[in-house]
Amino acid sequence: MTITGHQLIGGRDVRGTQAGFFAVNPATGTQIPQEFTGAGKAEVELACALAAQAFTSYRHTSLNERADFLEKIGQNIVALGDQLIDAAMHESGLPRARLEGERARTVNQLNLFAALVRSGDWLGMRHDPALPERKPLPRSDLRLRHIGIGPVAVFGASNFPLAFSVAGGDTASALAAGCPVVLKGHPAHPATSELVGRAVQRAVVDCGLHAGVFALLVGPSIELGGALVADPRIKAVGFTGSRGGGMALMRIAASRPEPIPVFAEMSSINPVVLLPGALAARAESIGKGFVASLTQGSGQFCTNPGLVLAIDAPGFDTFMKSATESVEASPAAPMLTPAIHGVYTNQTAELARHGALRQVVRGQPGSGPHECQAALMLVESNDFLADPVWHNEVFGASSVVVRCPDLATVQQVITHLEGQLTATLQMEASDLPMAQQLVPQLEEKVGRILVNGWPTGVEVASAMVHGGPFPATSDARMTSVGTLAITRFLRPVCYQDFPEALLPEVFKR
Amino acid sequence: MTITGHQLIGGRDVRGTQAGFFAVNPATGTQIPQEFTGAGKAEVELACALAAQAFTSYRHTSLNERADFLEKIGQNIVALGDQLIDAAMHESGLPRARLEGERARTVNQLNLFAALVRSGDWLGMRHDPALPERKPLPRSDLRLRHIGIGPVAVFGASNFPLAFSVAGGDTASALAAGCPVVLKGHPAHPATSELVGRAVQRAVVDCGLHAGVFALLVGPSIELGGALVADPRIKAVGFTGSRGGGMALMRIAASRPEPIPVFAEMSSINPVVLLPGALAARAESIGKGFVASLTQGSGQFCTNPGLVLAIDAPGFDTFMKSATESVEASPAAPMLTPAIHGVYTNQTAELARHGALRQVVRGQPGSGPHECQAALMLVESNDFLADPVWHNEVFGASSVVVRCPDLATVQQVITHLEGQLTATLQMEASDLPMAQQLVPQLEEKVGRILVNGWPTGVEVASAMVHGGPFPATSDARMTSVGTLAITRFLRPVCYQDFPEALLPEVFKR
Repeated sequence: MTITGHQLIGGRDVRGTQAGFFAVNPATGTQIPQEFTGAGKAEVELACALAAQAFTSYRHTSLNERADFLEKIGQNIVALGDQLIDAAMHESGLPRARLEGERARTVNQLNLFAALVRSGDWLGMRHDPALPERKPLPRSDLRLRHIGIGPVAVFGASNFPLAFSVAGGDTASALAAGCPVVLKGHPAHPATSELVGRAVQRAVVDCGLHAGVFALLVGPSIELGGALVADPRIKAVGFTGSRGGGMALMRIAASRPEPIPVFAEMSSINPVVLLPGALAARAESIGKGFVASLTQGSGQFCTNPGLVLAIDAPGFDTFMKSATESVEASPAAPMLTPAIHGVYTNQTAELARHGALRQVVRGQPGSGPHECQAALMLVESNDFLADPVWHNEVFGASSVVVRCPDLATVQQVITHLEGQLTATLQMEASDLPMAQQLVPQLEEKVGRILVNGWPTGVEVASAMVHGGPFPATSDARMTSVGTLAITRFLRPVCYQDFPEALLPEVFKR
Repeated sequence: MTITGHQLIGGRDVRGTQAGFFAVNPATGTQIPQEFTGAGKAEVELACALAAQAFTSYRHTSLNERADFLEKIGQNIVALGDQLIDAAMHESGLPRARLEGERARTVNQLNLFAALVRSGDWLGMRHDPALPERKPLPRSDLRLRHIGIGPVAVFGASNFPLAFSVAGGDTASALAAGCPVVLKGHPAHPATSELVGRAVQRAVVDCGLHAGVFALLVGPSIELGGALVADPRIKAVGFTGSRGGGMALMRIAASRPEPIPVFAEMSSINPVVLLPGALAARAESIGKGFVASLTQGSGQFCTNPGLVLAIDAPGFDTFMKSATESVEASPAAPMLTPAIHGVYTNQTAELARHGALRQVVRGQPGSGPHECQAALMLVESNDFLADPVWHNEVFGASSVVVRCPDLATVQQVITHLEGQLTATLQMEASDLPMAQQLVPQLEEKVGRILVNGWPTGVEVASAMVHGGPFPATSDARMTSVGTLAITRFLRPVCYQDFPEALLPEVFKR
């Protein structure tokens, strides 16, 4: 398939009106020759006008039609074959196996939402039958169902060029809800975005839908995203990215004449608590498992374990030795963009100079220009509590071990943490009393609590929560992964005393 | 029971640190002698600190304990007897029968949420069992449940001194969700608020709960509400009131270091569409039914029918004649506050001078100082479309009839309306084709569509939606009436690979 470098709007290629740009191969640091046009306000205007037009017909598609469309997107992505994987490798520096796995996850996610759509469960239908004889007043017949909220702006993330990008979880859940999507592609992987965008675009044609159901806008300017969120036809926003980026979109959305919800997944350091029984039983394997989770994909995951709260009990030194050896042996790999690498390098260098640091371990240095050299730091709990710099997310394979004298100190540290996506307990049966004290506290801080696992690797399932209190996300009441994510884009409508013939079709199934 | 005029915080009477104030009897315009102390930042600080402390134990109450508490509140309200009704009559000017009905509704609402809590449905529990043999990767065991979001600030509304005030729908749903409530009482009915607040306070004691579960703050200052929404321990806000007030709270909430959701129910003119078949069959009774809904409670309802879109078909003149006669015969009654009456008088006077007005009908003039003289105006559709002043909510018994030449014009007017709580169709079987065209359009504008009813009288039920697109509410995805209202104050938590002994109790039922 030919990459044109254009915007995909209304089923057509549209030349962007802003300055063109090029992607960089982060493995080599060289510019990739394909030029992409930059989208501006004119393209936002066109895409949103078409999305608003498409909403009316798209939201009335039958459950089967909408599910077929989601499945067709997945089929069209698979049909892109190696061209997609090659493009994503060039633009992200991620290895083939990872991207093939991510493609499978993306397609499975579309199929999961297709199955959800077919089930009709998301409609959340309710019925209170009329009670004409009730005293003092009769009750009307009341029926409720959910419909899509309207056109949704989705921002592709840099770190999952497939699963959290053009046809990722936000897009799948918005389309499942009956909402057209205007996608702001991440400028780090424009060819990958265009290929997937064409797969979606072709699925729109294959399924005979209104061409405004999907648009892909790309461009390097910050103004592009702001204009999209400010457009009055956009009714909700899905975003995965930095805290600064998410907060900027939230401010724009809140200051619109009609404020709209922003579902931003932003910042998390994902504490892992090492309890004494676990340290005594398997300190070495915990060290290895931790570093494997930490360094996977150069640590560029929202759920990367950036904080270890370890009770200073027998086994702690063995854990540190095991983790140290694993980090020292860990090879460097390209980060997603030169900018991400630059921030990572500065943040880790700054922490490594911190006066409170007890120990710092670095991974293998890179040979390429933008490679992530892993970092593991050890601090004492009182030093951690004394300086909020330790609480900041470092996006990449960097983590801080906090040595805590006892459980009360672990709890004190947790009290001071901001909201998180996840928390993990490493525990044995003997740790149960401590774990029972921690779980209620962690429930108020995080969206997902794991026992004896590692937080990376987020299952796309019905019971998954990829969300959490601020700043992990902008709305702790929601998740951006799993079938519950559809509720972000739905609103209830009540039908009072409707004659059978006037009721929407879904009530007649 | 003695009214002290103090704040109710932590189970104690606390003297407010701000200037005292008095309520006004709107029926007479005279000040009621009881002085109330005004709450300020110190009281917000104290109430929120206690609410945060109480959250941990309160959210762990069993389903039965929490349901018992809600029922106990209702019992304690009933036990206040006539003292409550008398106080509410004095402070609101509403008649006894209305307030007795509202009390019953308030108690029923608490009991409905008690039943919901006992059912456990609100937990939204999900379970994806482990798939240890799955390839390429096994699946972990994933369980999900919902918990309360944290302490909630609730603003009492002026127009329902019981059902949307201290122990109203927002309080009932927040307490049902496991969230402590800090209540900002409406300064128009402080004695009513204090009495109900004491009923809640005593239920807290009766049920052995933490005294921080509930606090009542009252005061006339705008700063009080702002300080409450800005407090970092408050995690969500429920509000029913004016568009200006709701927007101000939304701005404060969005500009906090940790932004929080505001569920504000603000502004709606609730269009009623009169279709030709209905006009031909029963124009006179439609006119009477309309004016009964319009003038009920001096029109001081969020769902008051402030706009009639009538197709100019046979029966239209009969409808106008019937409505005119009904309005002219309608007696005036006191409005809730002198301020509300002043705004109503100015708005209706301004509209009555509008050059586009074809006809204006007024109800009986009042004999008291703050009585609502009903108003019914007729304009042509092109004049309505030409001036947005006709779209503004007039809080009170005022409505605009828009004469539309045909269905296309009705649809054009609807396109130009802002979001609404309700829309109503008056139709006969012969109107079905027109109604089928209108319903999809109305679904995108409103939260509830009624057939052959009147929008006032909002049933508290499982399928009710009292919400709608902005500015009807700040979040169209929610409702403030009915059991679905609990979802505003819940967030999901996922438990991955938890051993049985560590799972929260609700998974063991």
